[in-house]
Amino acid sequence: MLHLLDLAGIVVFAISGALVAGRKRMDFFGVMVLAVVTAVGGGTLRDLLLGIRPVFWVADPTPILAAVAAAAVTVGAARLLQRTMTVLLVADAFGLALFTVLGTEKALACGAPPVIAVLLGTMSGTAGGMARDVLCGEIPLILRKEIYATAALVSGASFALLSRAGAGELWAVFGGVAPGLVLRLAAIRWQLGLPVFDAAK
Amino acid sequence: MLHLLDLAGIVVFAISGALVAGRKRMDFFGVMVLAVVTAVGGGTLRDLLLGIRPVFWVADPTPILAAVAAAAVTVGAARLLQRTMTVLLVADAFGLALFTVLGTEKALACGAPPVIAVLLGTMSGTAGGMARDVLCGEIPLILRKEIYATAALVSGASFALLSRAGAGELWAVFGGVAPGLVLRLAAIRWQLGLPVFDAAK
Amino acid sequence: MLHLLDLAGIVVFAISGALVAGRKRMDFFGVMVLAVVTAVGGGTLRDLLLGIRPVFWVADPTPILAAVAAAAVTVGAARLLQRTMTVLLVADAFGLALFTVLGTEKALACGAPPVIAVLLGTMSGTAGGMARDVLCGEIPLILRKEIYATAALVSGASFALLSRAGAGELWAVFGGVAPGLVLRLAAIRWQLGLPVFDAAK
Repeated sequence: MLHLLDLAGIVVFAISGALVAGRKRMDFFGVMVLAVVTAVGGGTLRDLLLGIRPVFWVADPTPILAAVAAAAVTVGAARLLQRTMTVLLVADAFGLALFTVLGTEKALACGAPPVIAVLLGTMSGTAGGMARDVLCGEIPLILRKEIYATAALVSGASFALLSRAGAGELWAVFGGVAPGLVLRLAAIRWQLGLPVFDAAK
Repeated sequence: MLHLLDLAGIVVFAISGALVAGRKRMDFFGVMVLAVVTAVGGGTLRDLLLGIRPVFWVADPTPILAAVAAAAVTVGAARLLQRTMTVLLVADAFGLALFTVLGTEKALACGAPPVIAVLLGTMSGTAGGMARDVLCGEIPLILRKEIYATAALVSGASFALLSRAGAGELWAVFGGVAPGLVLRLAAIRWQLGLPVFDAAK
Repeated sequence: MLHLLDLAGIVVFAISGALVAGRKRMDFFGVMVLAVVTAVGGGTLRDLLLGIRPVFWVADPTPILAAVAAAAVTVGAARLLQRTMTVLLVADAFGLALFTVLGTEKALACGAPPVIAVLLGTMSGTAGGMARDVLCGEIPLILRKEIYATAALVSGASFALLSRAGAGELWAVFGGVAPGLVLRLAAIRWQLGLPVFDAAK
């Protein structure tokens, strides 16, 4: 069940990477690379920092293949979806909350202190998307005025609290994903029509 | 003593990250993330490359908590400090020299050859600030005309030479930090009024 | 022989990094840092992901010294070469194909499944150049319309197939490098005169 959720997160992040790549008119394999970076970037950083080696997708290529397949399906629709920023943002929000929770869980299982586990979870959720944006020459979503890192931290902290309170794994995952996802979606909706980036340069 | 200096370096880098974030009008937790990346990014890269696992802040959350606390204190003052580029540059110069020296020391302790130890030290000093700048969509300070990587290399090499010459640890640290810090501060002052970035595009 | 080829790849990537740095008017040691990042960035990422520790250049500083020497030689000529984009692109194409093949070989030797080995090889070939471009505030070559990631994947896959088919190491390396290099050079030539970046913003 959690394995399936994890794959779902991989798929939505891959789609988000492929959509951004499509908006940049990258070539077919360039799209693949960006989708893979977005999908596995966060979990890869988490594994590196925890000292898990090799990283999760080296032993089992399933996540990579899932990301490539998701990107391939997306490529056909990329031209249609080019301006549907909303789809991209919602997929991104779901992947953010889910990966943060699963990353927090993995870090706790490795014996990291709770505060560090939540931080590593937040990195799991945000690093792939940040790498995607940096590679595209855009300022990461995380730096825009919308609540982003905040939503990830809320998801990670909720999961850690529920886990410590003895909640079942699935309930803890759900109880972690939900508040962060709701917060992020609310932030997106609330920001509609507002200028997203307003630097005091 | 060195542990305290290390924490001082964490704090000034966190402040520098928070100040840059403040100038970009990031949200509260976004500021935290940027402060943490700036503060522990260089040391994290050093540990990854040396194969130390997990990285230093996973076992002991003190550096993370120090960075978060420093960022929280900075946030209140961020609006006031928004344009005090000088404070940012001086804090950055101190962190650069100190982290380079401590990184060089750690790499030597792990058995790296001196030239590699100085390189890893320079990475410890520069990678956090580079990550900060890249995440903010700015060209890293290291690429601007001011002497930056040079100052770090001078600090690392001075420390390595003093260590090999048998100097006491504290003297070697001081003798490593001082020349790089002086060089960097001199470079900042000398550059005042000159165009900082002058690419032959 | 392969060790020499590896050093040749290091040298051309270091030159490519130094040339880009020269076009950005970086200071002397800044050029060194960028050359080193470009030259060893891809292989470093490969080693980190495979869990090889410490990474390849910590035990043996030869690649670093070769990169620094190549950068030093390039610096004198940088002013002359500033606008010779072609030299930069051809050196980059050779390093791309060679590092992809050698990275794929190392990953296979570590027991990675073929599809993952090709992916890790592609990362070996592309990550250094991507880091170079990101640090320079430019959108990575990989994102431009020219075939780039595609060429790396072709090289990696050709090598993996030839290896599995029982080809001798040197033939497999040659048979892997050649098609990717030809494809990349053809893509560069075909793109001459076309707008390189054409985002649907």
